[in-house]
Amino acid sequence: MAQLLPEALLDAIDELGRLPGVGARTAERYAYYLLKAQPSVSEKLAGSLTQLHRGVKQCPVTFALINTDQDVSPLYDDSSRDKTTIAVVEEPLDIIALERTGQFSGTYHVLGGAISPIDGVGPEQLHIPELTKRIVDDNVVELIIATNASVEGESTALFLQRHIQDAGLEVKMSRLARGIPVGVDLEYADQITLSHALEGRRDL
Amino acid sequence: MAQLLPEALLDAIDELGRLPGVGARTAERYAYYLLKAQPSVSEKLAGSLTQLHRGVKQCPVTFALINTDQDVSPLYDDSSRDKTTIAVVEEPLDIIALERTGQFSGTYHVLGGAISPIDGVGPEQLHIPELTKRIVDDNVVELIIATNASVEGESTALFLQRHIQDAGLEVKMSRLARGIPVGVDLEYADQITLSHALEGRRDL
Repeated sequence: MAQLLPEALLDAIDELGRLPGVGARTAERYAYYLLKAQPSVSEKLAGSLTQLHRGVKQCPVTFALINTDQDVSPLYDDSSRDKTTIAVVEEPLDIIALERTGQFSGTYHVLGGAISPIDGVGPEQLHIPELTKRIVDDNVVELIIATNASVEGESTALFLQRHIQDAGLEVKMSRLARGIPVGVDLEYADQITLSHALEGRRDL
Repeated sequence: MAQLLPEALLDAIDELGRLPGVGARTAERYAYYLLKAQPSVSEKLAGSLTQLHRGVKQCPVTFALINTDQDVSPLYDDSSRDKTTIAVVEEPLDIIALERTGQFSGTYHVLGGAISPIDGVGPEQLHIPELTKRIVDDNVVELIIATNASVEGESTALFLQRHIQDAGLEVKMSRLARGIPVGVDLEYADQITLSHALEGRRDL
């Protein structure tokens, strides 16, 4: 079969197809959209991708993502935030989700994943030593373990709880509440969520 | 609210969010995936996007997309293809779909869209004069009008049919068959498709 599309377009389709969840058709759609748009659209996208790794590093204390020219995360540096309360999350983007609630004024600690033997991720790959160091250094009183509600997230929470107790660190530990999401009818809630909701019922 | 993510990451999320059908969450996912991957992944993607417009132009005869260094579409240039049969399509990517069938050995003509008064696209924006020129120059005997099965595609097909008849060009014109797609149960076929399938029934 003769080559049906110009090489430059095939290349773009190929590379766009590496994005997560993007199949051949979607990649074609993206590439063709960019081709029909002003060249400045794809040039700006290209520019931002070239700068992506150069402009981003990890905070050495919290492991949040920060600008290359920053020393530590601005959320940690902010004197109005309570350093004695830490929300422990799996990934940097989880911080955004929690910050959007506007309900948390403590600081964050990014583990860098969750324990998952299938994916070959053990506790030694997570930023746990740095967390125990912070608990001591900042006299932390509360740890909110905000890992995902997945099997890996739950295992990680359990591991952290035991690990910190075993290390003899006295710190209050909690886990985000499980229950029925706002706007969801009882009849559509799954069994496990409903069990959690019953277990965690609150007095009126 | 303090800036929660590094600028370089925010930029990449912004630019990825311009792709069609990509919302904020998907753009975050793409950007974070690229950030976790080797820098070469985003650099190669950036490189392909920079080259996209430079490496692609329109064939002056068929309006298919071709390499900048090609004169005409290789599908048109190919002496084994029948220049007296033209499949008329709306967009360049439609050629790929038809080529994948392996059933067509004629040539293509890309209209560059379909007539759509709502979007301000009239017949004068489509490559129709170039099509009538080809019909004369190449002694075309059959025109397969392969526009989409949408209102715009149907209007365009009807317009083309009348336009070519009015121009006094003697050429056989056909339209792709409408009917029940392979693998679809009769009970799930919509009414209009089913009417077309009845109308276009074939003797056994």
